[in-house]
Amino acid sequence: MLIIISGPAGVGKGTLCQVLCRENPRLHYSVSLTTRSPRPGEQDGINYHFVNEDDFMAQRNGGQLLEWANVHGNYYGTPARLVEQLRKEGRDVILEIDTQGARQIRRNTNDGVFVFLLPPTMQDLLKRIHKRGADAPDAIKRRYANAFRELEELEKYNYLVVNEEIEAAVLNINAIITAEKCRVSRHRTLLKQLLEEGDIDDLSLHR
Amino acid sequence: MLIIISGPAGVGKGTLCQVLCRENPRLHYSVSLTTRSPRPGEQDGINYHFVNEDDFMAQRNGGQLLEWANVHGNYYGTPARLVEQLRKEGRDVILEIDTQGARQIRRNTNDGVFVFLLPPTMQDLLKRIHKRGADAPDAIKRRYANAFRELEELEKYNYLVVNEEIEAAVLNINAIITAEKCRVSRHRTLLKQLLEEGDIDDLSLHR
Repeated sequence: MLIIISGPAGVGKGTLCQVLCRENPRLHYSVSLTTRSPRPGEQDGINYHFVNEDDFMAQRNGGQLLEWANVHGNYYGTPARLVEQLRKEGRDVILEIDTQGARQIRRNTNDGVFVFLLPPTMQDLLKRIHKRGADAPDAIKRRYANAFRELEELEKYNYLVVNEEIEAAVLNINAIITAEKCRVSRHRTLLKQLLEEGDIDDLSLHR
Repeated sequence: MLIIISGPAGVGKGTLCQVLCRENPRLHYSVSLTTRSPRPGEQDGINYHFVNEDDFMAQRNGGQLLEWANVHGNYYGTPARLVEQLRKEGRDVILEIDTQGARQIRRNTNDGVFVFLLPPTMQDLLKRIHKRGADAPDAIKRRYANAFRELEELEKYNYLVVNEEIEAAVLNINAIITAEKCRVSRHRTLLKQLLEEGDIDDLSLHR
């Protein structure tokens, strides 16, 4: 299963994904490529693969990215090979990507679960972006205006989760993962197996 | 929210609904009408409202039933008034109904959550029907043959839950309820509220 987490910058997608992966050993976080500079505390290979624009373009043009986007002048992308390998192994993969990337995934896969993470209020989001302190006033304005544009994509997502308390948000996303695994559309073979068991005359009551 | 639980006779729908309602005070079990005789231990008004065929027909013909079905020669139906009242109060209602009734609900409501409860194997189902000891051999055969017919309706349901261990089945259904509450389609007003908060110039960063 491919779980896509989007939401405005500052809503807490990164922290949420970290907690989710710590709690679910079967869940694998897909580390994105980015051309933006690391923020304080961010580690290469853990939060992102930090690359320069030439490297990014080479991978993008070589068809090695599952999705990519340009957000606020920086490029972001998901390496396709690792995701495909993990999915072959039957693991669930979580992608923390923006709405542009999500649109590409929606076009190319049919079993994605699209979750939009929301702040309790936009005022709250603004405070969080401000508090993070990593952005200049101009960048804050840009991010905040972009958050409104991204909200317009919400209708294309399957689920929305309000990130007021991280524990509650994690519980909701865990429930979404569990519920999605119960979707009839994901169990074609089980139905077939049951139907193939044959009728009462083939079965012993006393086995 | 209206949660519809269907599944073959003997799969354990009744017990599951009891446990669910005990654990979720907001969840209300809709007690069906039936013309069949009570089984040992079944209580009028708790498991079913036991009525005669004339009473049943009067309610059905008076438009007082949300859905109704004839299963193995007995009538079953859901009283509309109570369900509508509970829904007005914002409570979640769980309906334990057969596939015929579910079809009627599917036609008439757009926010139903349809869950099909399955046995781990059909052999296992047969053992459970047999063990219940309430049915004559002919009735067992009929119920079992009917279970296969009902499986063909599975594709029209949203979720399937295998009732191997009741605790696991309850966890899955609780997750389904939680996840469904996060569906974007159930939160039209939240999106509107956020969009109405206005742009950055209306907001103070220091509130």
